[in-house]
Amino acid sequence: MSKEGDKPRPRVLIVGGGFGGLTTAQSLKNASVDITLVDRTNHHLFQPLLYQVAMAGLSPADIASPIRSILHRQKNTKVVLGEVTQIDFKSKMVSLRDGENLSYDYLVLAVGAKTSYFGHDEWSTYAPGLKSLEDAIEIRRRVLTAFEKAEREENETERRRLLTFVVIGGGPTGVELAGALSELSRFILSKDFKNLSPTLTKVILLEKSSRVLSSFTEDLSEKAIRQLDSLGVEVRTGASITKIDEKGVVLEDMVISSATVLWGAGVAANPLAKKLGLEVDWAGRVVVEPDLTIAGYPEVFAIGDMAAFLHQNGKPLPGIAPVAMQQAQAVARAITDTSSNRTRKPFHYIDKGSMATIGRSAAIFQFGRVHLSGFIAWVMWMVVHILFLIGFRNRIMVSLNWLWQYFTYQRGARLITGERFIDE
Amino acid sequence: MSKEGDKPRPRVLIVGGGFGGLTTAQSLKNASVDITLVDRTNHHLFQPLLYQVAMAGLSPADIASPIRSILHRQKNTKVVLGEVTQIDFKSKMVSLRDGENLSYDYLVLAVGAKTSYFGHDEWSTYAPGLKSLEDAIEIRRRVLTAFEKAEREENETERRRLLTFVVIGGGPTGVELAGALSELSRFILSKDFKNLSPTLTKVILLEKSSRVLSSFTEDLSEKAIRQLDSLGVEVRTGASITKIDEKGVVLEDMVISSATVLWGAGVAANPLAKKLGLEVDWAGRVVVEPDLTIAGYPEVFAIGDMAAFLHQNGKPLPGIAPVAMQQAQAVARAITDTSSNRTRKPFHYIDKGSMATIGRSAAIFQFGRVHLSGFIAWVMWMVVHILFLIGFRNRIMVSLNWLWQYFTYQRGARLITGERFIDE
Repeated sequence: MSKEGDKPRPRVLIVGGGFGGLTTAQSLKNASVDITLVDRTNHHLFQPLLYQVAMAGLSPADIASPIRSILHRQKNTKVVLGEVTQIDFKSKMVSLRDGENLSYDYLVLAVGAKTSYFGHDEWSTYAPGLKSLEDAIEIRRRVLTAFEKAEREENETERRRLLTFVVIGGGPTGVELAGALSELSRFILSKDFKNLSPTLTKVILLEKSSRVLSSFTEDLSEKAIRQLDSLGVEVRTGASITKIDEKGVVLEDMVISSATVLWGAGVAANPLAKKLGLEVDWAGRVVVEPDLTIAGYPEVFAIGDMAAFLHQNGKPLPGIAPVAMQQAQAVARAITDTSSNRTRKPFHYIDKGSMATIGRSAAIFQFGRVHLSGFIAWVMWMVVHILFLIGFRNRIMVSLNWLWQYFTYQRGARLITGERFIDE
Repeated sequence: MSKEGDKPRPRVLIVGGGFGGLTTAQSLKNASVDITLVDRTNHHLFQPLLYQVAMAGLSPADIASPIRSILHRQKNTKVVLGEVTQIDFKSKMVSLRDGENLSYDYLVLAVGAKTSYFGHDEWSTYAPGLKSLEDAIEIRRRVLTAFEKAEREENETERRRLLTFVVIGGGPTGVELAGALSELSRFILSKDFKNLSPTLTKVILLEKSSRVLSSFTEDLSEKAIRQLDSLGVEVRTGASITKIDEKGVVLEDMVISSATVLWGAGVAANPLAKKLGLEVDWAGRVVVEPDLTIAGYPEVFAIGDMAAFLHQNGKPLPGIAPVAMQQAQAVARAITDTSSNRTRKPFHYIDKGSMATIGRSAAIFQFGRVHLSGFIAWVMWMVVHILFLIGFRNRIMVSLNWLWQYFTYQRGARLITGERFIDE
């Protein structure tokens, strides 16, 4: 443990290589600290485009880069592949699953969120969520396999079940999945499957509340529904799900027979926070102080999707990349301020607008009183996502893929891999 | 079953969507036949570049295309995703695993080969082979994980074991894997892993016979060994393996401690041939007649890696794409000849040269008396592979990836996915 007198370089331990963790490390590039970044996977994942991997438009490597490569020029930073199992806040020590212990002077927790089934974990088998590359590949496999089976199915009822896709959750993930799924079936697969007519495919988006994309204003929600409708997505709001199984989805007032159900409804914070005995909110997020630290531990920060910052309007900030990145920059500043004996400033999030994409030429954008939708919002969405995508190569590859898809109405990554599709 | 009199369109059933099966379908594009192509996977795989997926240079989607897309303009062809379990040659009927039966007038078997451990199937756990996309992703995972573990290992002996890679088999696959593995460690990973020195990594290529790439002439074998040597690969010929387990490889005269063993030593024909009770050679290949049919069944053809064609020099033809493709064209001709009552011609393979790549700027090429090696052979190798790669998009993507890798010494697909890496 460093004492004020001998001035060793403070050790900053960052847990998580998502937008929050990575930005913290990068913001401390020139600080005189020694950084260790720990992540369970070897790659930083650009989550906003994950649904395009699931919908066969992009390859995993297009939206993921090894954390080591991203940080390899940064001399004060070490990357460790490992999973944190326990933290002793008193003795400032983090334990990894393989037995190694890492001690720290500052700890930044940025472990993100995971899919939550709100107490119905038994639904996970039938309705996979979308948080990792493995999830995306599994969803791709299920969707493409359903079309393959439908092509050969002679029973009309079963064929209809195979061609009915249910997406649960009207937030940005659900809307993106539903829109992309409808496009995939209408424009792309219908050309290759000779027995399938695109009109047979049904994509149903279920939302519990009274409108989709409820973080946007009502006029934009309306526009999104109209854009979904023109893509052929059937939107059902006020839908209360009572059961999901291999046959489909049971609502309070109806039953939907479907072979492929996707879950975009909810996330909860990584269970690590709860396990550590910290104060968490209903979604398992760590309640943080105005300077993003944990009560009683001014050297421990929690940011991004795993943190509940309630000091701005009283509501937690949305679980999006800009929040995590602004928090990361604030944490980096707080660490340098403290080690230079300056006072920390409280964190304040600056909303730079939000956007959601629905499909080809369809998106919405909101920044204060500026509300945009349609083609112009869609182009903005693409530009912003390309700019924030990490890595020169990935930007080029994703741009080329998008151009190719736009002009050919094709998808380049239509591979069924992983588990064998055949019923054995 | 069609009779000569009423002239219905003959039904051609092709089993397998590799180079042989796909080329057969494409060669019959304008014939008045009805084609059904059955494959277990939804994609045609460009096997010659599979090792680059395993070595993190390319993504699965770069070297695989949905068979449906490749054939979607071909009106006389239907694609079925399914696995053949039984064939009744007498009643001309093929059974699929899901219970469906398909009858045929002509049957083309082109199911390829699988990894063979020559009676030591227990080695498969420790030394994965390279035949499918799943294999390639598993090898990538093992190789990248070994480097991650080595970076954190403090015990010197264990670290050396983690950094020792053994490739078994001195044929083209083994040589490509060994060369690419050495490059990956020397030029790419050594930049990102701060505790690893590239000189610690050891790549050992084991070959049972007295020389590598024995299908080439001796001078080219020599050149290949010199090129491997300059890439840092240690080549051991005359190596007789007695055991492979989690500790490494045991040879007759020495023990190699290694955490990552890759199997490029052998393939045998798909076990389907044997199961059907057909006459097979030592490698499980169907022995075929001069017109590529099975003895006694002039309407059943077997081509590619699963066939042993012994009518040219008495030795089976090599298991390479050009053989399968030329045979496919011959089968298509035989089918149209027979249905127009013309006599079939016997098959004759025309060798257009063979090539193998070793690494950056290193390859060998042989065509009769023309022997090339080094940079020029490497450029030829790239051009030929790009030209034969199926799909406009894949060609562009692979070319760009290669250019990017050439100039940056980077690899774009360094993702550890699939099974969780952590010892749980």
